[in-house]
Amino acid sequence: MSELEQKAINTIRLLAVDAVAAANSGHPGAPLGMAPAAHAVWQTMKFNPKNPKWINRDRFVLSNGHACALLYSLLVLYGYDLSIEDLKQFRQLGSKTPGHPEALDVPGVEVTTGPLGQGISNAVGIALAQKQFAATYNKPDFQISDSNIFVFLGDGCLQEGVASEASSLAGHLKLNNIIAFWDDNHISIDGNTNVAFTEDVLGRYKAYGWNILEVENGNTDVDGITKAIEAAKKSDLPTIIRLPTTIGFGSLAEGTHGVHGAPLKADDIKQLKTKFGFNPEESFVIPKEVTELYNKHVSENQQVENDWNKLFAAYKEKYPTEGAEVERRLSGKLPEGWEKSLPVYTPNDKPVATRKLSEIVLSNVVPVVPEIIGGSADLTGSNLTRTTDMVDFQHPDTKLGDYSGRYIRYGVREHGMGAIMNGIAAFGANYKNYGGTFLNFVSYAAGAVRLSALSHHPVTWVATHDSIGLGEDGPTHQPIETLAHLRAIPNLSVWRPADGNETSAAYKSAIESTSTPHVIALTRQNLPQLEGSSIEVASKGGYTLIKQDKPDVIIAASGSEVAIAVDASKKLSEEGIKANVVSIPDFLTFDKQDQSYQLSVLPDGVPILSVEVMSTFGWSKYSHEQFGLNRFGASGKGPAIYEYFGFTPEGVADKAAKTVQFYKGKDVLSPLNKAF
Amino acid sequence: MSELEQKAINTIRLLAVDAVAAANSGHPGAPLGMAPAAHAVWQTMKFNPKNPKWINRDRFVLSNGHACALLYSLLVLYGYDLSIEDLKQFRQLGSKTPGHPEALDVPGVEVTTGPLGQGISNAVGIALAQKQFAATYNKPDFQISDSNIFVFLGDGCLQEGVASEASSLAGHLKLNNIIAFWDDNHISIDGNTNVAFTEDVLGRYKAYGWNILEVENGNTDVDGITKAIEAAKKSDLPTIIRLPTTIGFGSLAEGTHGVHGAPLKADDIKQLKTKFGFNPEESFVIPKEVTELYNKHVSENQQVENDWNKLFAAYKEKYPTEGAEVERRLSGKLPEGWEKSLPVYTPNDKPVATRKLSEIVLSNVVPVVPEIIGGSADLTGSNLTRTTDMVDFQHPDTKLGDYSGRYIRYGVREHGMGAIMNGIAAFGANYKNYGGTFLNFVSYAAGAVRLSALSHHPVTWVATHDSIGLGEDGPTHQPIETLAHLRAIPNLSVWRPADGNETSAAYKSAIESTSTPHVIALTRQNLPQLEGSSIEVASKGGYTLIKQDKPDVIIAASGSEVAIAVDASKKLSEEGIKANVVSIPDFLTFDKQDQSYQLSVLPDGVPILSVEVMSTFGWSKYSHEQFGLNRFGASGKGPAIYEYFGFTPEGVADKAAKTVQFYKGKDVLSPLNKAF
Ligand SMILES: [Ca+2]
Ligand SMILES: [Ca+2]
Repeated sequence: MSELEQKAINTIRLLAVDAVAAANSGHPGAPLGMAPAAHAVWQTMKFNPKNPKWINRDRFVLSNGHACALLYSLLVLYGYDLSIEDLKQFRQLGSKTPGHPEALDVPGVEVTTGPLGQGISNAVGIALAQKQFAATYNKPDFQISDSNIFVFLGDGCLQEGVASEASSLAGHLKLNNIIAFWDDNHISIDGNTNVAFTEDVLGRYKAYGWNILEVENGNTDVDGITKAIEAAKKSDLPTIIRLPTTIGFGSLAEGTHGVHGAPLKADDIKQLKTKFGFNPEESFVIPKEVTELYNKHVSENQQVENDWNKLFAAYKEKYPTEGAEVERRLSGKLPEGWEKSLPVYTPNDKPVATRKLSEIVLSNVVPVVPEIIGGSADLTGSNLTRTTDMVDFQHPDTKLGDYSGRYIRYGVREHGMGAIMNGIAAFGANYKNYGGTFLNFVSYAAGAVRLSALSHHPVTWVATHDSIGLGEDGPTHQPIETLAHLRAIPNLSVWRPADGNETSAAYKSAIESTSTPHVIALTRQNLPQLEGSSIEVASKGGYTLIKQDKPDVIIAASGSEVAIAVDASKKLSEEGIKANVVSIPDFLTFDKQDQSYQLSVLPDGVPILSVEVMSTFGWSKYSHEQFGLNRFGASGKGPAIYEYFGFTPEGVADKAAKTVQFYKGKDVLSPLNKAF
Repeated sequence: MSELEQKAINTIRLLAVDAVAAANSGHPGAPLGMAPAAHAVWQTMKFNPKNPKWINRDRFVLSNGHACALLYSLLVLYGYDLSIEDLKQFRQLGSKTPGHPEALDVPGVEVTTGPLGQGISNAVGIALAQKQFAATYNKPDFQISDSNIFVFLGDGCLQEGVASEASSLAGHLKLNNIIAFWDDNHISIDGNTNVAFTEDVLGRYKAYGWNILEVENGNTDVDGITKAIEAAKKSDLPTIIRLPTTIGFGSLAEGTHGVHGAPLKADDIKQLKTKFGFNPEESFVIPKEVTELYNKHVSENQQVENDWNKLFAAYKEKYPTEGAEVERRLSGKLPEGWEKSLPVYTPNDKPVATRKLSEIVLSNVVPVVPEIIGGSADLTGSNLTRTTDMVDFQHPDTKLGDYSGRYIRYGVREHGMGAIMNGIAAFGANYKNYGGTFLNFVSYAAGAVRLSALSHHPVTWVATHDSIGLGEDGPTHQPIETLAHLRAIPNLSVWRPADGNETSAAYKSAIESTSTPHVIALTRQNLPQLEGSSIEVASKGGYTLIKQDKPDVIIAASGSEVAIAVDASKKLSEEGIKANVVSIPDFLTFDKQDQSYQLSVLPDGVPILSVEVMSTFGWSKYSHEQFGLNRFGASGKGPAIYEYFGFTPEGVADKAAKTVQFYKGKDVLSPLNKAF
């Protein structure tokens, strides 16, 4: 390592230390330990700070997101749209330097990390998307996509199950564009990792099918790191490099968990700066020669991007169809008129399970929207997520598919799937990707789902078997709290379509979405096609399906209970009770409508009864009375369970009649009519 | 294998096949493949079908719970309280044989399985508890606890991250009482496992520190299985045995995923019965000699239990203190007067963070309640879950603790921790066990949390850093939807105490619980001790803290927002508005109170405003207006974020005044006053 390199590394280190000190909060330990690797990696990476979304950039994922002072320092040094001033505002309200890297707010941050295990799993998704993109559009004479994905991860990430799931799949898929560095510093928050984490990490990754490498000393051996990167690039397998480092390198408390999550003391910072050849009285210093070193890499990279632009221009000439498609995708536009492929239904069409209706949508749209790729967590035949003309995404050697395949066999790895989906979305090129599992097991992936919403990844969960209606599999498989959980996540669309038109509306919303993830909850059992539904009305998230003059009651329902509510309404009219029926397939979309529309659906003056065969939790925002299931379900035939719990036209009519009776003579305010 | 053994194995197989056929639903494939191992394992196990909760029984965990027809068949054959008639009712509503094994409903089922990966992880918890119990109470001359934990798991369980987490920890802890069988049948729902799962499983488990064994042919080699069990019992490490089997062994479709999750066809069943030497026209047949074979094992086991009873009687004489304690624990009684150790506070006591108040509770109760054990997912210093006199639960060779230790270093493995906690509870001996993490990361364990609630495991999550008040770590760490998610789970107590007395009440509820799991959400920041709180009133789950005559408005809040509501009430009184303040630390407990009490807290005639710094989802069940945070949080100093979002006395008073204004002249019905 040259003296200049050493200075550059120490500059990274001290910027991170100064940022944490200024905030009086944060994590200096990992930046001090990982700065040499960060320097070595970024000096080999291709990227353009002025065009951070360039599609053929190499990606850097900081899976141990608490080390973000390291990442922010790199972004400043390489000239991204992040300044020393931003660094001084580290962890302050409203700054561009939040306490964990937020992809949404900080240019150059590829994915939001912090929740451990997510970053490395996102990286698997980015790598998968890169392979799929390259296999789809590269030509023998035009490698328009060939980027690598670099990952830093710590002991914490390696302990998380989500990382295990994603890493196992990455090994299976032989995603050799992943180059991961394990920050092996023997420290986690509880102290020495020997209190809980003594497994043979490299042995495990070898078992996953990864290429395993080691660098002798991560604190000093930049050349060794660079050589490991070169070796990794030649591998046919994803690579993990064990990098022994000293947490808090150079600090008086180096090598202890004391430097993990608290600022260094003032005198410690001073001795550190002195030790590193910096003025102990100055902060946030960037030596000129360091700026020059990194500027040089940026300008070389500018040439790399220029060359790529020329390559792509030539590509478009030689392969105009593919070129136009790539260009369209990079612009974020869907194919013109794609939505015409969405199926529409009339009440004369036969009853069909919404999971089957979902399959029909996919069969129609997958051929016309090439950016759609999807898969299932080993429930393909139940989720009905694989259309007949989809090819599996597999390493070609397997003879089971190839890298241009659009169907991903995730295995029984829901959380890994969720994090990988986020990575696919983060790759760019407007990928719209979906993953199938039972609605109940979306919960396994809760950690990834909330990050989809936070990071605005427009991924879609095809969540079948959405209620007690799944029947015999019983309470372990029947969602009760799941929709409440998902509906409470900001920026998550949770659709529960009631028929074919609503299913098409759900997919229309999902595919057109650029910043909101979707969960589409679908039935195992057949549902009739409703009179009054359409893609257009359902696209408001909530609408009146049966509208009568001066209704006595409104029954608001979702999914499989809408048809029951319709039948209950008919039954009630025989008793002289006028019951409107409202379908609310997606709370988030309904909440986005203007209040006058909302109040036209759920007006003042009429008591509202909600009906849904799961937890009533949250339904009181739309209703005065709630009929649901605030207990776990039961194992038995689906219709028998519905009957048992009273989710029948008679049962719903009875609750509606009681609602009318109770509110007779009382002033009734719409729950949507609010004081503020 | 003898002819009789073969007949016994085929009896198990055909009972399972007949049960699935009768239900016309279920999973015949795994029972056909795993019956030989089931026979071999159960013939080595000690247990008493008439006393299924005998504390020193060996445990059997069917991690691939969909194979439950196998387990139910064994329970019938060994004479548990489950009959052939029950088997004929397989998967029917109200039967004792639900579609997945439910520990709560079926005697002999140790833990509820079906959601993949949970069973093996529960088994790690059972094994941990057994080691802790043995190390605490065994004496050199009295091995009163020495049971083994047998586990069956399939390819699905092995792909789940939760199983990876728990298995890594089991290897670290050297839990050599675990003997797991991997049903290596190369099939999962998507077909051949080679589409997604090609890792080297045994290599991975070796890396975790397990003993790995293989049986050549799981379909036929019962002696090989028995020998593997013997070898496993001698190991110093947990053991996993690779058992190659043929899914659907004997069926015309054996070896394909077609036999995984659907009944065999009628003619297939007939040829199967003929092949196995049974009458193809008969169903649910148990040959007399098979009954005798298994009865023999049961009566030998009866002697084993009798011997243990004698041993324990002698133990009680020689070690009266320990004997009395074991007896008390087995009876499910807590130590007399334990609750006197709960701290109480007055308004003069200083402001303290509820996470710190939680630590004080633990410091007080851990010494007097030996059945309390706990740990943290690598956040000990943040969760404050380790009292100063706790010893780590570690293998003694590590010199970091020993097996009588009561503090568990879970590592960064939240989901594994949740499943292990369930296993500890399932062991028996009235273990009350807790696990710490940030509230936001309880979501990582959602799959295990819902099973705690479903299976009535009284485990406790110490969930600190419970809001935006955690500050700088930012949106990735700040819960928004988490409480809504957890509150919507049936039978889950979700406490969010507002001060010291409420924290004590939360722990009182948790420790006295025998069938309801608890989450205790705790602040990072200091909170004042409230005037009017007490363990007694808080134990109602909701109560009036500030009560005024003819109030204009009620402010209902939880946790850190209660003190803000109190200050808002004072501010409002200056404006001539009378605002009652209600604290609702636990929805579930409050919902269990009688309606007259509930209506005394939230009566008709007064508009109610809820205040909580996270999603308002669900709060409309108690309030007319909701002030909360229906978006993700922000990175910054905690107080600055509270201020930014308006969670100040002024901000709350403003919302309350608007509420009063809006409802002026309107009839106001309590949201708890219901039509049905
Ligand atoms: Ca570490
Ligand atoms: Ca299998």
